[in-house]
Amino acid sequence: MELDLQLYSTRTDLALEAKEMAQGPQKTPIPGVNEEVDEADGIKVTRLAVANHAGSQAIGRAIGNYVTLEVPGLRGGDTGLAQRVSEVFAREFEQFLERIGITKDSSVLIVGLGNWNVTPDSLGPLVVENALITRQFFELVPEQVSPGYRKVSAIAPGVLGLTGIESSEVVQGIVDRTKPDAIIAIDALASRSLERVNTTIQIADIGIHPGSGIGNKRRGLTREILGVPCIAIGVPTVCYASTIVNNVLEMMKNHFGQINNGSGAAHTKEIMGMLDDISEHERLALVKEVLEPLGHDLIVTPKEIDEFIEEIANIVASGLNAALHDAVDPGNVGAYTH
Amino acid sequence: MELDLQLYSTRTDLALEAKEMAQGPQKTPIPGVNEEVDEADGIKVTRLAVANHAGSQAIGRAIGNYVTLEVPGLRGGDTGLAQRVSEVFAREFEQFLERIGITKDSSVLIVGLGNWNVTPDSLGPLVVENALITRQFFELVPEQVSPGYRKVSAIAPGVLGLTGIESSEVVQGIVDRTKPDAIIAIDALASRSLERVNTTIQIADIGIHPGSGIGNKRRGLTREILGVPCIAIGVPTVCYASTIVNNVLEMMKNHFGQINNGSGAAHTKEIMGMLDDISEHERLALVKEVLEPLGHDLIVTPKEIDEFIEEIANIVASGLNAALHDAVDPGNVGAYTH
Amino acid sequence: MELDLQLYSTRTDLALEAKEMAQGPQKTPIPGVNEEVDEADGIKVTRLAVANHAGSQAIGRAIGNYVTLEVPGLRGGDTGLAQRVSEVFAREFEQFLERIGITKDSSVLIVGLGNWNVTPDSLGPLVVENALITRQFFELVPEQVSPGYRKVSAIAPGVLGLTGIESSEVVQGIVDRTKPDAIIAIDALASRSLERVNTTIQIADIGIHPGSGIGNKRRGLTREILGVPCIAIGVPTVCYASTIVNNVLEMMKNHFGQINNGSGAAHTKEIMGMLDDISEHERLALVKEVLEPLGHDLIVTPKEIDEFIEEIANIVASGLNAALHDAVDPGNVGAYTH
Amino acid sequence: MELDLQLYSTRTDLALEAKEMAQGPQKTPIPGVNEEVDEADGIKVTRLAVANHAGSQAIGRAIGNYVTLEVPGLRGGDTGLAQRVSEVFAREFEQFLERIGITKDSSVLIVGLGNWNVTPDSLGPLVVENALITRQFFELVPEQVSPGYRKVSAIAPGVLGLTGIESSEVVQGIVDRTKPDAIIAIDALASRSLERVNTTIQIADIGIHPGSGIGNKRRGLTREILGVPCIAIGVPTVCYASTIVNNVLEMMKNHFGQINNGSGAAHTKEIMGMLDDISEHERLALVKEVLEPLGHDLIVTPKEIDEFIEEIANIVASGLNAALHDAVDPGNVGAYTH
Repeated sequence: MELDLQLYSTRTDLALEAKEMAQGPQKTPIPGVNEEVDEADGIKVTRLAVANHAGSQAIGRAIGNYVTLEVPGLRGGDTGLAQRVSEVFAREFEQFLERIGITKDSSVLIVGLGNWNVTPDSLGPLVVENALITRQFFELVPEQVSPGYRKVSAIAPGVLGLTGIESSEVVQGIVDRTKPDAIIAIDALASRSLERVNTTIQIADIGIHPGSGIGNKRRGLTREILGVPCIAIGVPTVCYASTIVNNVLEMMKNHFGQINNGSGAAHTKEIMGMLDDISEHERLALVKEVLEPLGHDLIVTPKEIDEFIEEIANIVASGLNAALHDAVDPGNVGAYTH
Repeated sequence: MELDLQLYSTRTDLALEAKEMAQGPQKTPIPGVNEEVDEADGIKVTRLAVANHAGSQAIGRAIGNYVTLEVPGLRGGDTGLAQRVSEVFAREFEQFLERIGITKDSSVLIVGLGNWNVTPDSLGPLVVENALITRQFFELVPEQVSPGYRKVSAIAPGVLGLTGIESSEVVQGIVDRTKPDAIIAIDALASRSLERVNTTIQIADIGIHPGSGIGNKRRGLTREILGVPCIAIGVPTVCYASTIVNNVLEMMKNHFGQINNGSGAAHTKEIMGMLDDISEHERLALVKEVLEPLGHDLIVTPKEIDEFIEEIANIVASGLNAALHDAVDPGNVGAYTH
Repeated sequence: MELDLQLYSTRTDLALEAKEMAQGPQKTPIPGVNEEVDEADGIKVTRLAVANHAGSQAIGRAIGNYVTLEVPGLRGGDTGLAQRVSEVFAREFEQFLERIGITKDSSVLIVGLGNWNVTPDSLGPLVVENALITRQFFELVPEQVSPGYRKVSAIAPGVLGLTGIESSEVVQGIVDRTKPDAIIAIDALASRSLERVNTTIQIADIGIHPGSGIGNKRRGLTREILGVPCIAIGVPTVCYASTIVNNVLEMMKNHFGQINNGSGAAHTKEIMGMLDDISEHERLALVKEVLEPLGHDLIVTPKEIDEFIEEIANIVASGLNAALHDAVDPGNVGAYTH
Repeated sequence: MELDLQLYSTRTDLALEAKEMAQGPQKTPIPGVNEEVDEADGIKVTRLAVANHAGSQAIGRAIGNYVTLEVPGLRGGDTGLAQRVSEVFAREFEQFLERIGITKDSSVLIVGLGNWNVTPDSLGPLVVENALITRQFFELVPEQVSPGYRKVSAIAPGVLGLTGIESSEVVQGIVDRTKPDAIIAIDALASRSLERVNTTIQIADIGIHPGSGIGNKRRGLTREILGVPCIAIGVPTVCYASTIVNNVLEMMKNHFGQINNGSGAAHTKEIMGMLDDISEHERLALVKEVLEPLGHDLIVTPKEIDEFIEEIANIVASGLNAALHDAVDPGNVGAYTH
């Protein structure tokens, strides 16, 4: 059985999940991938550094820094939790910028990728709508700008089907004209597990790569292309039907393995047949073989996506505003969004 | 292993799927359930009549008439197909009304159930918005109403969480005041298979029952409650994660059974272990047991739901307008919606 | 010259403006109309009581209590001011309820009148969307309801053109079924001056009368009709073109009168001719006579209506939530709206 | 009394109105401004050519071509009329392109100016949303593009307050990257009379000039700036309160002049005093002097703006699609918009 690993690799946009899959259930450490975990108040922060080529190959991700916030409780509608996540995100993002050398007076262009007509793909445009924009004041009335603000502009470039123009072309044109010191690109992602949808935020300094995210980009947004650093902020908002099935089979395997811990292996084999033996890659290929006659591997999103996406977009925008402007109080970031 | 059949039965709102599950892969005919199938131009119409108590028990549906349109090609964005579906739906609905004795001059109240803030639950309100409303003319300027129209009013009563009032209470209050001859209730449904989502329309003369549809109704809309006939039009817009997994396992079973047709049974058993043997009900219970620790069985919808729901709402509204008003040309129903 | 006073009287829905017009520039007190004014922090509160038939005739308003908040600074986008207005409104509304005998445990149905598809007429539906709804908890889990809340339900009944049903019929049906102790009806109004649009809130205990508000009601919502008290909350969101013109002519007259205070009268007459002499009623008739050939007297709204209406709806909803539920802190009412 | 003519000149964006004001009630021809009028089926087409400096000075507009469609019946909701306007607009626009040398295979970038959050300023973004976009097919699968289409891309660049970037900068960046042969810029305008709001379409080959339209542009979009021809399509969607008043006073003057034709002049003078004598410019200055204490000269839009703007955006988009692509049938342009 041959596996289309390339396709497989598109099934998650989270470096954390790619790493977990590479590790397998034994959670074997991966050489070249360093990890640091902090957990408090229901918010888990994982800082991954893909340090070298070996690490990059092992998990199928570019060399760079990846910070992931996981907040399983997020979809419960707890306003206090949302506020805390926003603050943690602001702190992590501020440190992230510092670590990669973006100073407090660097000007920034926020790019909200995605299609505003497709709710699970509208994260980027929604964040742009709630970002605190200041560039116009620096340009027109610089003497009136209070200390504690930096120059921030923002654009939602749309998608190829709506504009006829690659979003990367739009961004490049604007970068040429307005010369920001750095780009922050916001995008909706696909994850491997439904549980991570709308409960996870990823920060990465590798930009946006072709084929990532929901909207089938044909060109990326990277430092190589844009000439300035590009930090990507992503939130998974969808899953492939095939990965949901595969994920549940994996859970099934672990479930029966645990229940029958003495005679586990034999028992699980009895229940799940070959599905127990084969690797995750092979199993996914199997699931996809079965789904193929349906013509396409459907991408799904939780039914409550309208509410979820608005909440997470508010969290990201509030956090960004506090991280980018010292004058914006992280404890009251909500006041700057609508 | 004990099965919670009650919960199970809520996993599909389509009588057609309930019947298919009751029949099993052998497609055994079910006594008391009569079936008539027409298929043309990519549109399959199935007319089910649950004739007696035995049939009702066998498929877990009330005695009554169920017409289902299945149009797998619908999500492809083919405007011509959408137009044809609208016409077939208009014809079927008109015949349905006739069959159950609703005459051409009966006044009708259209009820759009569901939550307009939740895209996959907004079918009902969207249809109401595009329905051709005429009651005000009959009340205020009856002499000016052209022939070929009947008295139609419409309401989207909202959901309990938004109004504090059961939608059935709102409808009952309006029925008391405005005395329509019949109710047509539109609701978004859950189906067992992702493929049926947004490609299927069900018409039934049994009204709306508690617990059906997406929004957890606590009270129904039936002839018993309202005092007038209540016809339900439903479109599946969501699936439970557990039924997706279960459905794929079923497909897997059939897939390997077909590939290895000689030595099929043994081979499938080898691949799928006990998952091959057990009944669909047992398998679903297994899947749900595995998903339980996640706290909830997520309900999902295709990522393109915004576009899909608008298309199907237009089809239903156009079809309804043509079916209810003789003066509305079925070939040009689009002109009456926006 | 004959005046169509009936049409004239529809040009403002504010009792305060009706009183001002009746008083004329000399601000003559009107027998039977008592007035109390408080002004602080840019918020002017006027409490009018139309005490008897004479007062009612003089200003063309029903006998009853009218409280008006005027906040000229409101359209400036000052978040702090909006918060203060919300608190003052909450306090005034709470006192208003007390004054007319609605106790703290009376159940309330909020009715959001108007057409959600017409921005300046969408105030009612927007307030309903942001109201804190609790009736379902009292009905389903009464033992879990904390003290400090009362039973509140809410409905936006739509308009005749959308539903085919008078909004008063919808409300009556719901009142019959759910038996609230009082109705609070929210409606968008017309005012005489552009300056009052979106800067004024009126509370009145006379319910909603036919022909008031933007949407041409044919039936009212009053205690007589509903059997329970009906309090109306209104905000002017539109003006007639004719009243704008008339209002400016009035201002012109005052303007020149002031400039040339010695020889004022003669001078103004020179500038404005007969327009100076005639009464406001006559002048409006003149303006309407001129506008008539255009076919209709256009109703206009400020270009920023989208933002204004959202702000004022938030103020009203926040204030209502604080006034109706003791447990809702007036200093933090914003947290309960979205 | 000193007049601020500069401010005055911003009160209308329609060349036709500027010309009418320059002509005065006697409709004196203006040297250097040529005019051609066609009227049929309730649609009046005026083709103005400002041929030289004298003409330009006389009416305060740049040298160039201006085509105006006036359709007073448009706000009546007549679908047939909307369809006809769309066809006439398509034909006029096609001829306009030809006249100024834009050939059938020239690639085009449609720019939808304005703020999508402000309904009367959302014309441009709405047209972009309904435009038939083809550039992506020419870039990715040129061999599959049928004859009869040209390369069209589109962008809604937002406004300075939302993005921190002048819309002209965004457009210049995109023009640099994508090299279109021509720009078509869509913008909402201010007119002098309420009757022209949403019933008038202006085509001009002079691009967009700073300060025109609703949204206070600081930089223009012209051939000089962009390096390619820029055609502007505009629809008035707002009026200044001061111009409404002024306009009604003008109508009043004409009204009384007509009624009392024999003794007209004396009589009108009697009624209107000095308001009759002074020039339109002086009268407007007077009105503005009176309105000044209110702090700002409000800009208003008809209360039905939501519906009007959608209708006119559909007309413009349908017309554009038919004019730009020969394969799009002008008789069925509606099918290409949503």
